[in-house]
Amino acid sequence: MRSLALLAVLTLCLGARAQEPAECVDPFIGTTNFGTTNPGAVTPHGMMSVVPFNVMGSEENVYDKDARWWSTPYEYHNKFFTGFAHGALSGVGCPELGALLTMATTGPLTVDYREYGTSYRDEKASPGYYSVFLDKYGVLAEATATARSSAERYTFPEGTGHILLNLGEGLTNESGAMVRRVSATEIEGTKLLGTFCYNAQKVFPVYFVLRVSKTPSASGYWKKQRAMTGVEAEWTPDNGRYKLYMEYGRELSGDDVGYWFSFDGLAAGEQVEVRMGISYVSTENARKNLDAEQAADAPFDAIREQARKGWNEALGRIRVEGGAEEQQRVFYTALYHALLHPNLVSDVNGEYPLMERSGETGVTDGERYTVFSLWDTCRNLHQLLTLVYPDRQREMLRSMTGMYEEWGWLPKWELYGRETFTMEGDPAIPVIVDSWMKGLRDFDVAKAYEAMRKSATTPGAQNRMRPDIDPYIEKGYIPLGFYAKDLAGDTSVSHALEYYMADAALSLLADSLGQGDDARLFRARSLGYKRYYSPESGTLRPLHPDGTFLSPFDPKAGENFTAAPGFHEGSAWNYTFYVPHDVEGLAKLMGGRRKFIDKLQMVFDEGLYDPANEPDIAYAYLFSRFRGEEWRTQRETRRLLERYFTTAPDGIPGNDDTGTMSAWAVFTMLGLYPDCPGEPYYTLTSPTFDRAEIDTERGTLVIEKHGEGYIDRMTLGDKPLKNYRILHDELLKGGKLTFELQTGK
Amino acid sequence: MRSLALLAVLTLCLGARAQEPAECVDPFIGTTNFGTTNPGAVTPHGMMSVVPFNVMGSEENVYDKDARWWSTPYEYHNKFFTGFAHGALSGVGCPELGALLTMATTGPLTVDYREYGTSYRDEKASPGYYSVFLDKYGVLAEATATARSSAERYTFPEGTGHILLNLGEGLTNESGAMVRRVSATEIEGTKLLGTFCYNAQKVFPVYFVLRVSKTPSASGYWKKQRAMTGVEAEWTPDNGRYKLYMEYGRELSGDDVGYWFSFDGLAAGEQVEVRMGISYVSTENARKNLDAEQAADAPFDAIREQARKGWNEALGRIRVEGGAEEQQRVFYTALYHALLHPNLVSDVNGEYPLMERSGETGVTDGERYTVFSLWDTCRNLHQLLTLVYPDRQREMLRSMTGMYEEWGWLPKWELYGRETFTMEGDPAIPVIVDSWMKGLRDFDVAKAYEAMRKSATTPGAQNRMRPDIDPYIEKGYIPLGFYAKDLAGDTSVSHALEYYMADAALSLLADSLGQGDDARLFRARSLGYKRYYSPESGTLRPLHPDGTFLSPFDPKAGENFTAAPGFHEGSAWNYTFYVPHDVEGLAKLMGGRRKFIDKLQMVFDEGLYDPANEPDIAYAYLFSRFRGEEWRTQRETRRLLERYFTTAPDGIPGNDDTGTMSAWAVFTMLGLYPDCPGEPYYTLTSPTFDRAEIDTERGTLVIEKHGEGYIDRMTLGDKPLKNYRILHDELLKGGKLTFELQTGK
Repeated sequence: MRSLALLAVLTLCLGARAQEPAECVDPFIGTTNFGTTNPGAVTPHGMMSVVPFNVMGSEENVYDKDARWWSTPYEYHNKFFTGFAHGALSGVGCPELGALLTMATTGPLTVDYREYGTSYRDEKASPGYYSVFLDKYGVLAEATATARSSAERYTFPEGTGHILLNLGEGLTNESGAMVRRVSATEIEGTKLLGTFCYNAQKVFPVYFVLRVSKTPSASGYWKKQRAMTGVEAEWTPDNGRYKLYMEYGRELSGDDVGYWFSFDGLAAGEQVEVRMGISYVSTENARKNLDAEQAADAPFDAIREQARKGWNEALGRIRVEGGAEEQQRVFYTALYHALLHPNLVSDVNGEYPLMERSGETGVTDGERYTVFSLWDTCRNLHQLLTLVYPDRQREMLRSMTGMYEEWGWLPKWELYGRETFTMEGDPAIPVIVDSWMKGLRDFDVAKAYEAMRKSATTPGAQNRMRPDIDPYIEKGYIPLGFYAKDLAGDTSVSHALEYYMADAALSLLADSLGQGDDARLFRARSLGYKRYYSPESGTLRPLHPDGTFLSPFDPKAGENFTAAPGFHEGSAWNYTFYVPHDVEGLAKLMGGRRKFIDKLQMVFDEGLYDPANEPDIAYAYLFSRFRGEEWRTQRETRRLLERYFTTAPDGIPGNDDTGTMSAWAVFTMLGLYPDCPGEPYYTLTSPTFDRAEIDTERGTLVIEKHGEGYIDRMTLGDKPLKNYRILHDELLKGGKLTFELQTGK
Repeated sequence: MRSLALLAVLTLCLGARAQEPAECVDPFIGTTNFGTTNPGAVTPHGMMSVVPFNVMGSEENVYDKDARWWSTPYEYHNKFFTGFAHGALSGVGCPELGALLTMATTGPLTVDYREYGTSYRDEKASPGYYSVFLDKYGVLAEATATARSSAERYTFPEGTGHILLNLGEGLTNESGAMVRRVSATEIEGTKLLGTFCYNAQKVFPVYFVLRVSKTPSASGYWKKQRAMTGVEAEWTPDNGRYKLYMEYGRELSGDDVGYWFSFDGLAAGEQVEVRMGISYVSTENARKNLDAEQAADAPFDAIREQARKGWNEALGRIRVEGGAEEQQRVFYTALYHALLHPNLVSDVNGEYPLMERSGETGVTDGERYTVFSLWDTCRNLHQLLTLVYPDRQREMLRSMTGMYEEWGWLPKWELYGRETFTMEGDPAIPVIVDSWMKGLRDFDVAKAYEAMRKSATTPGAQNRMRPDIDPYIEKGYIPLGFYAKDLAGDTSVSHALEYYMADAALSLLADSLGQGDDARLFRARSLGYKRYYSPESGTLRPLHPDGTFLSPFDPKAGENFTAAPGFHEGSAWNYTFYVPHDVEGLAKLMGGRRKFIDKLQMVFDEGLYDPANEPDIAYAYLFSRFRGEEWRTQRETRRLLERYFTTAPDGIPGNDDTGTMSAWAVFTMLGLYPDCPGEPYYTLTSPTFDRAEIDTERGTLVIEKHGEGYIDRMTLGDKPLKNYRILHDELLKGGKLTFELQTGK
């Protein structure tokens, strides 16, 4: 049934008008193969997302959140629906959010998800909308969203129906919730979230208000009871089980609590709607968000239409023509995935949780964003936003500098006001520098520079961003065992490579701000990578504190997310070419251009390239740094697109990383890629589509392709273009980029 | 050490001035032998009590709340202190309240009570004050209270100290709590209580605000983590254990949560104080209660002194002279225990939880009381309050009629706005009638009569107070198996006996209100007991629906709280004489006065009397209904006092039943007892003291005793008194009751 549903959607994109790019998005792409995207209803950069939850409660689940490390509320091959999560992350590798689970059931009331879960069919998903038919109950469940609120519509069969809110479960590993009855049709409360990537201290609350559209015939709380023993157990009727609180009307707190609404005497086809507002500040704000974004009498379909309109506006900033329909679908779905994070965290009144000052609230007159997975997104996603969505990127830059003002440091992997310190490096620097260098300057650059300089120069343990800055500054590299005492967990080379890249970017900003000394200092530091180059292995290679290389050494160690000394989530091959700011210098170390090209080609040819993670994500573009080798970039990018980016549910090579994988596909299909974060350049490749129009703050950029094959000639505006690496300014000034392709390289 | 402490206190009562009756109270009396009183700090009828908690966490505990049915936060022979509970019940038989546990520790922080609990010594307790020395920490812990708030003072040794608030544990079997940091020195929150006597639905929240007197060097939350399995367990550092939340500042909810304050660098002897306000309405009210009852700069000793003063005022309404010092101690301790419940539930602003309308709040311009254990207290405790504390009894009458207005029924066993339906009968009726008949009439008697009439006449299952009213009205008795289908759990005779007693009382009120028909109807119903009399067994005896007696039948079955058909918590012997409103009629059934006397005497002589429960509590006074047999009352009451009411920790015969056992002792030692609830009479016995002065609303009643032995002559005012049963009005009008005793009956 599901494939039929997909087919039905497929036919629409083919005839989609340019105003309806949402028709070309398939939210099921990336929902298996660890893409960890989901088909839930969400708006562009929305705080709210309404996501089908199918990763618990059934032994038939292929992937179960409680049986393994699992990081998404939805998996394509699972078959056991236990409700809608409200608020979720897309494309991440650690469990988080995915809580506030609503569910509709019929018949006798049960509040145990193992019992109330159901198989399902007829799943449909499009931007801002999801629906599914629940087999066990004969209920059609539909969901849509605004930026900070949700709407669900349940179409019941005749009889008794129930709406449940389960606050005990969720994707997050944190627990503890409170729910309070406000009226017969409204409840409010809070649930604790956090421990992202098993960071035990990084917790934060979500607040909610929930309304049902019909006055229930009965309602109440539930809570799982602690298990008692002996005579106490004998006397306690609900011992160790869920207790329904039938006569209780104040707030209920606990680890595993919930609330149900029952509706007797429903007519066949009768619809009951659920509306929820959320906030990360307070229940009052959750209510304000709901009231501000949904008129009390707004029909479900109007909210759905508004969500769709928002997506068409956002996706429609890029209009493509030509290419196969599947390619358009891959493209717009990738663009869709790239427009989910960072997402709004400020409420309609501008309030948001202050960074790392849990319990305190700030107010913005713009928008505050969260979910800065910067080790990932610094590479291309923010560059995409800078080019096409500068209005949002500007608020994100302000969000990041705001975090510095509140906490003293820029974010690394920020999550709802908490710095989780996930992955490494100093990735806010390239993001901010990149925007600045491309002319997006409407933020407090002095403050930002102060922040960046602080993390680049503060020595010792008080440096929260670069915990191993001392050897990095003193020796120019980070030796094995400095940060992680256990060699198996050492990621020293990865740390240093991120700092090199960040310092190269920082040097550009310093120069731009007239800080010549700083510029020279940081540029010099960015070249410390050379010390890691081992002529023997032909790769970068971990160094001992005494300056000798790790030995024995296997450059393949660390493949497929296994652990290997020096490298994080990758092998030496995945990292060796990751010096985007000094590719020529690296080539020189390797013995020159030819050797560099051959070695890089070998990485692709011999399966040493990892398409599922970020360190080597720009590798394919590095060929184009060398005249005459650009065809290799064009060949490899085409191959990667064809192989890893498809319309199938496994059509993303791995974790989408809050849109980073997708942003690679978007840029690559358009024919340009920002291959060195911080440098205001794009490297060009053969585009997928015959024509693309991209709205920018400086007018519409048109990209045209004539013919197929490899790039033969290029024109910018009306002038021939020789360079395959082009300045952002130049590109926008040119206004139109034309590729003439021909078969044969 | 403990016995020495007691001795130190003992010496004080001997020389106590009349203004210091609190010196004569030993709060350790009743703290073992299932008396279930406690030595905590409390004020008369206070909402707050601060009770040492020693019934969990150690395998050396003689009685452990988690190993058996257990109903008090403190047991005399246990030795493992885990903190102070805030809010507790005294003398009950089911686990409830005893939560909001504060604890002081030193050294490394641990929040697991199994680890932080400690042995102790130097316990001291007096009205409104308790102190103990914590061996493990060298900390002196002291506690005192106001009506709605507490103060604790901890004297630390040099070094690091901690104050903990444990919201996960408590005597109550309910769980779930929320705590929120308000400032560095203040937290607030709520915890769910309830399920008294395993009534799963009868739950209610307590709200609190807690302040520490010193700014902590660190503070934070804790929560026990759910146990995960497999890879999740491996990655979760606190899996299944208590997690300390070091960076979190919003509210925390969960089953097992708490908050700690740490104080580094304490000087030797430095004191840290803890103040807590509670409310059953809201955290705002908890704060108002604390602020209203404790000036911000009120020293601990001033609060302690205020509590003591309150007790001296309350206890000092009865002033006794003569008797052994131990007897004075027994007397004032009994009076102390009789002045704990019902207790205040209204806040300083008059707000209180509406009866059985969970979540709704009422406002009183007087005082709202709770903990109406009426099956117990209808027999004598409210009679004591009516005589000596009419100001409080009046508010209790208003509280009871208020409950009717809010819920539609008078209370039976009311607990913080919930009717727990514990035990049986219609016991609000005798309480209200008794007060009315004694002239305490400043309440809405029309409303009260309406309420009483409703429970006495509403047929069928809609009668919440008398679930088996149908056969009671139709047949005049309740047959086996009507209420409890399982004969082993049947308590039909007990039910009916309570209704007879209540209807006899109601008949008095009807008559007083000029409702002659009602008076006759209810009086007639009150005599239905006769049907239960079995000449064969010589006892009351359960009846089958067909009117035949249960057979075979053992009148001793049901002794010692075992189960037996027909009778609740007692044997046929414990119930057979329980017809206080028609003793003569019962005697007639038994074959006349002589047979009645002999049989009643046999009950005492052959150990068939149960001094630990209420059904036979007035038995000793029934002799005096027959001229010439009054000496038996005097002998048995003296024997019971001597044997069961002592200054030892086991000096109460069983559950004090919210002061009912103690009220028996108070009345009996004074020489008078209200042996038929509702009838405005006292039956006289030989008093314990040479002289007693009792403050009443109609002046001071003086009771004098001359000589020892049995009563020879009595004088009321200046007139000889012949009757051993005397009207309340007559007694107060007389003003002085003199007993002339002589040895030999």
